[in-house]
Amino acid sequence: MTTAINRQFRLASRPVGDIKESDFEYREEPIPTPKEGEILIRNIYLSLDPTNRIWMTDAEQYMPPVKLGEVMRGITVGVVEESKNQNFKKGDFVSGMLGWQDYAIAFGDSGNFITALPNPLSVPLTAFLSPLGGTGCTAYFGLLDIGQPKAGETVVVSAASGAVGSIVGQIAKIKGCRAVGITGSDEKCQWLVNELGFDAAINYKTADLDKELAASCPDGIDVYFDNVGGSILDAVLKKINLNARIPLCGLISSYNSQKPVPGPYNYSQILMKRARVQGFIILDYIPRWSEAITEMGQWLKEGKIKYSLEIVEGLENAPKAILKLFDGNKNGKLIVKVSEQP
Amino acid sequence: MTTAINRQFRLASRPVGDIKESDFEYREEPIPTPKEGEILIRNIYLSLDPTNRIWMTDAEQYMPPVKLGEVMRGITVGVVEESKNQNFKKGDFVSGMLGWQDYAIAFGDSGNFITALPNPLSVPLTAFLSPLGGTGCTAYFGLLDIGQPKAGETVVVSAASGAVGSIVGQIAKIKGCRAVGITGSDEKCQWLVNELGFDAAINYKTADLDKELAASCPDGIDVYFDNVGGSILDAVLKKINLNARIPLCGLISSYNSQKPVPGPYNYSQILMKRARVQGFIILDYIPRWSEAITEMGQWLKEGKIKYSLEIVEGLENAPKAILKLFDGNKNGKLIVKVSEQP
Repeated sequence: MTTAINRQFRLASRPVGDIKESDFEYREEPIPTPKEGEILIRNIYLSLDPTNRIWMTDAEQYMPPVKLGEVMRGITVGVVEESKNQNFKKGDFVSGMLGWQDYAIAFGDSGNFITALPNPLSVPLTAFLSPLGGTGCTAYFGLLDIGQPKAGETVVVSAASGAVGSIVGQIAKIKGCRAVGITGSDEKCQWLVNELGFDAAINYKTADLDKELAASCPDGIDVYFDNVGGSILDAVLKKINLNARIPLCGLISSYNSQKPVPGPYNYSQILMKRARVQGFIILDYIPRWSEAITEMGQWLKEGKIKYSLEIVEGLENAPKAILKLFDGNKNGKLIVKVSEQP
Repeated sequence: MTTAINRQFRLASRPVGDIKESDFEYREEPIPTPKEGEILIRNIYLSLDPTNRIWMTDAEQYMPPVKLGEVMRGITVGVVEESKNQNFKKGDFVSGMLGWQDYAIAFGDSGNFITALPNPLSVPLTAFLSPLGGTGCTAYFGLLDIGQPKAGETVVVSAASGAVGSIVGQIAKIKGCRAVGITGSDEKCQWLVNELGFDAAINYKTADLDKELAASCPDGIDVYFDNVGGSILDAVLKKINLNARIPLCGLISSYNSQKPVPGPYNYSQILMKRARVQGFIILDYIPRWSEAITEMGQWLKEGKIKYSLEIVEGLENAPKAILKLFDGNKNGKLIVKVSEQP
C-alpha cells in the first residue's frame, strides 16, 4: 500500500454559470500517514449534492467556500485503514466530510464531521449517504421540525424525485398527509406515485403548473418543502393556505445563474397568508442526527421508506457526474463509487 | 339629530397604481337606527393605514377586499349615541372597524371588531388608534412574538418614523436591544434618535444603504421588522446574522405598483443564514390584544413610549389625506378627525 497513490480532485476555478469539468484539477499525492490521535480512511462512496455548487462559489454562505487549490469538499463513507485513535480500529466504517479523493486523514486540523457507523452494518453502506445520511436527515428535520405537518394537511415538495425530495414525500405519507411531488419527467412522476406512494406528481416541464397544482391540491398547500426556488416557488405561493410553512432547503434553480435572480414575485403571499419561510442547513441538526437515524432506520426496516440510487463508477468520473445534479438527468441519490467495500 | 345626515365615502373604483381621490365617492345617507342588540356609534377619529390600500384591491388578501360601492373600510374610535345592547350605554367610547363615515351601526350583520374602551379614558382617545390600538399591537406582537429579540441583539426597522415603526424601535430599546431605524428624511432621523432614543437612523433616500447599515449595525442584524420590502429588504438581507428573524408586516414599496414586483434578489440569504421570514396580520392577535394594551399602557404611563400624530381635520379630507401614507409626507400616525370628542 505504501506505493499506492491518493487520487484527488482539487478546485481549479470557480464556475461561472454551469459547472465545467475543467473547474476541477486532477492530482496524485502520496497516501498520507496518520499522526497520533488521527485515522486514515479509504473512501468507498462519495456523495454528490446540489449544495456542492454553493461551496464552489466565493459568496457569503453557510460554510466557508472551498478555496482554490483545495481538495473538493464532499461527504463520503469509508473504511478505517489505519488508526492512531483509540476510538477507532482498522476496518471500522465511518462517514464524514472527507473530500473528492481516495484517502483522507480525519481529526487533526480538519473539521470533517466524522461519524462512526454501526459495525456490523445494519443496512447497505450506501444507505448512510442517503436515507440514513445527510439527505435523509435533511428531509426528516426540514419536514418535521420546520414544516410541522399535521395529519390531513397537504405537503408539496419540489425536486421530488431527488434524494431529499423523495424521502420528504414518504415521511409526509407516514405522518398522514397528502403528498404531492413536483419533478421533471413523466417517468419520475410514475415512480413517485406508483413506487413511493405519493398521492400525485406533476411534471413541471410539461404541465400548466397553476392548473395541475389546483387539481392535485384541492385543499390548498400547507407545507411546501422548497428545494428549487424560482418559478415553481411562485406557482406554489399562489396556492398556500393560511399559516403555511415553507422549509427552505435549496434554491437549485438559481445556483448556476450568472446574473442576480429575483426572489419570488408572489413574495407578498407570505404576508397575506401569514406564512413562514425558514431556511435551514442540516449541519445545524448534527446534535440531533441520532434521533432521525433511529426513526428513519426503523421505517427503512419496515419497508416504509424506499430510496433509489444512481451510482457512478470511479472517482475519475466525479467531475462529469456532478453535472447530472443540474440537468435533471438522474433519479434518486447520486453517488460515486470510489473503491471496493471490504 | 334626526335631521342630520351621515356623510360617507364609498369605494368608487379600484386604484391602478397610486390612489386617486376619485377612487372614493361622497354620499349622504340618513343616520341609521339601531335595532335590538345593536348600537349607533358616532365616529370621532378615523385611522388611515397602509393596509387600506390592500383592501381597495381585488386581489387575494387577508380579508375580503372592500366591494365597489361599499363604505370604505377603516378603523375608528367613536362614542355610543344610542344603545339597544345591554353591554353598552350612551356615552361609552368604543373602537372598531366602522368605516369612512360619520355614523355606524355595530353588531347585527357586520363583523366590525368592536372593543369597549375604558371609561373614564385613561389616555387621550387618539392613543387607542396608535400605541394602544392596531398599530401599537402590530408593533408589539410583530416584534416580540415573531421577532423574538434578545437583549443585546440588533433590531432594524423600516418605515421607522411611521406609526408602527416608531413603536417597534422603542420596544426594542425597552428590551435591551440596539434599535436602528430606516426612514426617508434627515428630520425624521433626528426625531428617531433624539426624541425616541433609537441608537441610529438612516435616511434611505440619501444614504449608501450598504455602507450605512454596516456602520449602524456593527454586529449584524438579528431582527428586521419589515414594513416596506423592495430594495431596503435586499440591503438588509446582506447583513443578517445566523438565525435572523424577519417579521413581515408590510410591503408598502409595492402596494401601488402596476406590474409584478420581484421578491428580494438576496432571497438566498434566507437559506444561507437559516433565517425565518414570517408574515403576520394583527387581526390574528385580537384574542391577545389585552396583553399588549396592558403592557403598552404601562410603558406609556412611565413615559417609555412616545408617539406622534398627524391629525387631519374633517372627514371630507380623508381621500386626499390617505395619499400622505405613500408619499412619505407625514410623521407618525395619520388620523382624520371626524367629529368633536364629547
